[in-house]
Amino acid sequence: MSAKQLTDLSQLCIHTITTKPWSIEEAVQNFSKEGVKGITVWRDALTGRNMKQTGELIRDNGLSIVSLCRGGFFPAKEVAKRKIAIDDNRKAIDEAAELGAPMIVLVCGADANQSLEDSRKQIRDGIAEVLPQAKAAGIKLAIEPLHPMYADTRSAINTLAQANDMAVELNSPFVGVAADVYHLWWDPALEQEIKRCGENNHLFAFHICDWNVPTNDFLWDRGLMGEGCIPVRKIRGWVEETGFDGFYEVEIFSTKFWEMDQSQFLNKIITAYKEKS
Amino acid sequence: MSAKQLTDLSQLCIHTITTKPWSIEEAVQNFSKEGVKGITVWRDALTGRNMKQTGELIRDNGLSIVSLCRGGFFPAKEVAKRKIAIDDNRKAIDEAAELGAPMIVLVCGADANQSLEDSRKQIRDGIAEVLPQAKAAGIKLAIEPLHPMYADTRSAINTLAQANDMAVELNSPFVGVAADVYHLWWDPALEQEIKRCGENNHLFAFHICDWNVPTNDFLWDRGLMGEGCIPVRKIRGWVEETGFDGFYEVEIFSTKFWEMDQSQFLNKIITAYKEKS
Repeated sequence: MSAKQLTDLSQLCIHTITTKPWSIEEAVQNFSKEGVKGITVWRDALTGRNMKQTGELIRDNGLSIVSLCRGGFFPAKEVAKRKIAIDDNRKAIDEAAELGAPMIVLVCGADANQSLEDSRKQIRDGIAEVLPQAKAAGIKLAIEPLHPMYADTRSAINTLAQANDMAVELNSPFVGVAADVYHLWWDPALEQEIKRCGENNHLFAFHICDWNVPTNDFLWDRGLMGEGCIPVRKIRGWVEETGFDGFYEVEIFSTKFWEMDQSQFLNKIITAYKEKS
Repeated sequence: MSAKQLTDLSQLCIHTITTKPWSIEEAVQNFSKEGVKGITVWRDALTGRNMKQTGELIRDNGLSIVSLCRGGFFPAKEVAKRKIAIDDNRKAIDEAAELGAPMIVLVCGADANQSLEDSRKQIRDGIAEVLPQAKAAGIKLAIEPLHPMYADTRSAINTLAQANDMAVELNSPFVGVAADVYHLWWDPALEQEIKRCGENNHLFAFHICDWNVPTNDFLWDRGLMGEGCIPVRKIRGWVEETGFDGFYEVEIFSTKFWEMDQSQFLNKIITAYKEKS
């Protein structure tokens, strides 16, 4: 069953990186003006800002902070590097708490100098290590499986099944999953794993964009919903069947769109959200 | 259990595309001179050649023809295009028979204008349609699962599990699977699916290369074994445990290596085969 068309923006969230040329203050102002209701804040957008004041600015403009993006990158062959990663995740939890973000998205990481199995173990151990602090701060951690083309250095968690398995293993209401259509659309097990994610009450986030045909860059060539080959609405239908009623988060990295006037791009996002998502 | 080091070239096969700057005649001569024992012939290398004579030339130089690469690309939203694909696969079977190649590798295809499910159904139907001709000619068909980054236009079969499922469904001694480390290395189910492939007696081919870190191009930046992050020897161990005793096929697309002197590159391949595969 495909989802119904989206007729209002009450569930639209946009990641700050999507409109990267804008400062966070510009993004907040423009999102708010157009009726966008949620924002996911990338940490680079916070450079030099006071976290609390930025959080207040966002809320005063009628936007919900959906998540802080991103923690993770736990694996490293060297112990010292793993320690640095843990410290950085602890810092992210503090930042999320100050900002008033209820969740951190984890891009889990991978170290090409060791096996994927070792990286996966270090991811699990890393999350377990910072989990008490996250719980104490009331911050949820969302494991985001990344496309297998990022298995070398960005994530050893490459399917929703793996993310679900890890969330089940960690067994905490503060650990769940962020499902991004860009990373998962090709997976024949996607429908069943989204269902399973819902049954475990750990579908924490849903990210949308599209896969351009052809795709010309491993990172910076994501498409706007409807431009590529991902059945975004069909996947949203599976997500809604779990009872998910959170935000649909537009996360697009695109040198092409970053070169555009960002107000025009925002209008394109809103149109694509309503008509193609 | 990791595989033992390879000390001779008796199982080394090289794809013609790996040394693309060489004509097939040059490749045959140079492979033979260096003691390579197998060759997989890409169809573009046969342009303007007499198939039978080329087959004889290869055999006269002490090389086994491992497979003809490639058939497939079955899916298309338009019926007329699917018909063209079927005709091309029939032509490939004729070519393989004339050349004396016992097998065709299938890059199955995908059409971004339709669902992956539709593409998968058309792949299955396409293979079923040409299978009687393949069987009559004594040519095996090897389904090659491709990395999920090619799910848009190159293959809707993206895991070894999917390829195994399809081979089981088609249930013929002339349908099996080609496992390529480049496409499959990230998959947490790889070991068990290689085992299953062996249990079904349909592991027809094993392709090796490496995943460069970073990888700079979606197609033309494959690495030589040992250069990247794929545990080639570990995966070869799983393949050998199935009882596989066929060729280890070096299939590298690399603009970097194609710019090199190809005799030097061939020496590098042989060294990497022995030391890192």
